[in-house]
Amino acid sequence: MNKFSIGVDLGGTNLRIAAVDEQGNLVEKVTLGTKVSLGRDHVIGDMCDAIQRMAERFRDSAPLLGIGVGVPGIIDMQTGWLRESPNLPGWADYPVRAEIERRLKTMVILENDANVAALGEKWLGAARDFSAMAMLTLGTGVGGGLVLDGAIWRGANGMAAEFGHITVEPEGQLCGCGNRGCLEQYASATAVVRMAREAVAGNGGSALARAAGSDPEFSAKSIYNLAIQGDEDARRIFRYVGRCLGIVLPGLINSLNLPIYLIGGGASSAWEAFSPSIFEELRRRSYVYAATAPHDPMTNEGASARLEADSRKTIITRALLGSDAGLYGAARLPMLADAKR
Amino acid sequence: MNKFSIGVDLGGTNLRIAAVDEQGNLVEKVTLGTKVSLGRDHVIGDMCDAIQRMAERFRDSAPLLGIGVGVPGIIDMQTGWLRESPNLPGWADYPVRAEIERRLKTMVILENDANVAALGEKWLGAARDFSAMAMLTLGTGVGGGLVLDGAIWRGANGMAAEFGHITVEPEGQLCGCGNRGCLEQYASATAVVRMAREAVAGNGGSALARAAGSDPEFSAKSIYNLAIQGDEDARRIFRYVGRCLGIVLPGLINSLNLPIYLIGGGASSAWEAFSPSIFEELRRRSYVYAATAPHDPMTNEGASARLEADSRKTIITRALLGSDAGLYGAARLPMLADAKR
Repeated sequence: MNKFSIGVDLGGTNLRIAAVDEQGNLVEKVTLGTKVSLGRDHVIGDMCDAIQRMAERFRDSAPLLGIGVGVPGIIDMQTGWLRESPNLPGWADYPVRAEIERRLKTMVILENDANVAALGEKWLGAARDFSAMAMLTLGTGVGGGLVLDGAIWRGANGMAAEFGHITVEPEGQLCGCGNRGCLEQYASATAVVRMAREAVAGNGGSALARAAGSDPEFSAKSIYNLAIQGDEDARRIFRYVGRCLGIVLPGLINSLNLPIYLIGGGASSAWEAFSPSIFEELRRRSYVYAATAPHDPMTNEGASARLEADSRKTIITRALLGSDAGLYGAARLPMLADAKR
Repeated sequence: MNKFSIGVDLGGTNLRIAAVDEQGNLVEKVTLGTKVSLGRDHVIGDMCDAIQRMAERFRDSAPLLGIGVGVPGIIDMQTGWLRESPNLPGWADYPVRAEIERRLKTMVILENDANVAALGEKWLGAARDFSAMAMLTLGTGVGGGLVLDGAIWRGANGMAAEFGHITVEPEGQLCGCGNRGCLEQYASATAVVRMAREAVAGNGGSALARAAGSDPEFSAKSIYNLAIQGDEDARRIFRYVGRCLGIVLPGLINSLNLPIYLIGGGASSAWEAFSPSIFEELRRRSYVYAATAPHDPMTNEGASARLEADSRKTIITRALLGSDAGLYGAARLPMLADAKR
């Protein structure tokens, strides 16, 4: 085996750990539950045990380059403290990196989970071969990652790429961040369910209403299933998701003029239902996009390398690596640090 | 004298040329009218003659590093052709750089005028000492410039930093770019006059109405003068300008987390009238800003160096160099190219 590193995706629900070699082969993957309720120390203990066991197994076959950990929250890159982390209660203002390093007795790189997912897609996914890219992750919230000149763009305080909190409707839905009308309020899985419940309240006799009443896990996925079965209420919701993405993406395109923008995260599996509205809005709302759009914006998949060559096209497409993007990206962190040395 | 370069600000109205030394001293400045109506070749001839005369005058005293030209339009950096230029009719799809080089028999660097103004402010103005910054230029339109890691960020097609075309109101005023509700429709000098005329139509007896009827050059400046005299209609317009900037800036802050954002251009002289509304919106609309705002956001001027040191604050402030920003930035281009060699 080639040199490898260990990537960790520390989520609020799952704790996933993988050994990935320099060529991007996922050699081994372990998934544990994140026992958030047992507290910070317990979760860090579980994680460090699993990392150590994995490192042991490969100890004689290949050199370990390092350990990268993707964490949901804002990280102070200098100190390695978590500054804010809504999905890991009790972890804020705590020296996470130092604690992991103390237990493992080796250097660890911490990074925001959305940044890490973007880095994974840039390395091995839909944005491979591109040196600059942005990714929007549609999940419980809407996360963002930004890669410029081949490296994660963190901004002055590690708070860059919070694309979910760009304003779509200045006087719209109140967001947890304090703003009104954030993208997250219209394009997250949570928002899809909220909008479906609002539609049910206005139109009680529909299939959507029956599903809302009978489906105990009335989720973005069940609403998507109704949409592909042709339910007009469900379809309208995803068209609205697409419209809102089609208002935020032009702002990014006009500001950054990147060659590629990815939509990832669980809710991106409804791509077929919302992406036509994105492209409809895009041509109208961004003359930069209109001037650089591929001939057929809907069918870019797989064509990235060819399009990079002429570097004249703006590609909007689905992320490719699903929930593994974060694992690949986390494993990539020590490799990039190693290349710099 | 130290090594120097010649910077050119080629505008639709004025053609300005300056010799600037490596320390940022403006040694000589010449302003000519841009005789757009006489055609492209005539303007390029005027410009090259003036550059040559200036270069001659300093020939024996210091080495000339090169020539940088700021141009209003989209430039193909590889070929040096102007791809689009609304203010220089007849110049699009023309090898501007090659033509200037042919006449001057020396290398010339072409750059978009808003990028050049941002570079000037980054070198010697309000963003000096910062390695990353964004600038919004409020003039006839709203231009933008972006500097990341010390260099102009052009994007994949040289079309980055078009901040004037970020959406504020999804179903708002139609913009020349094809979108609705662009920032440019609410924060340019042109927009201020349009909004004033709209207010006059709704409230014919006001001071604004009298000015609109009697002032032959009813301009953003005359509306600002009414605002500082306390005219409520005029004040309301600038509050709206501030609100719209206060919707777009959070998007940039949440996306890029830069340490400093500048507002420049002619209409930025109304700063006192619109900036309070910016800060009002900002705190509410960007939790990144709320977490990183200086103690008193209104009084940052002059404090930039101190604030850079802790690199934890987000500064929004006026540009400092006025219409010379573009000259300094254009002169800076050959110096940066020289440093790279």
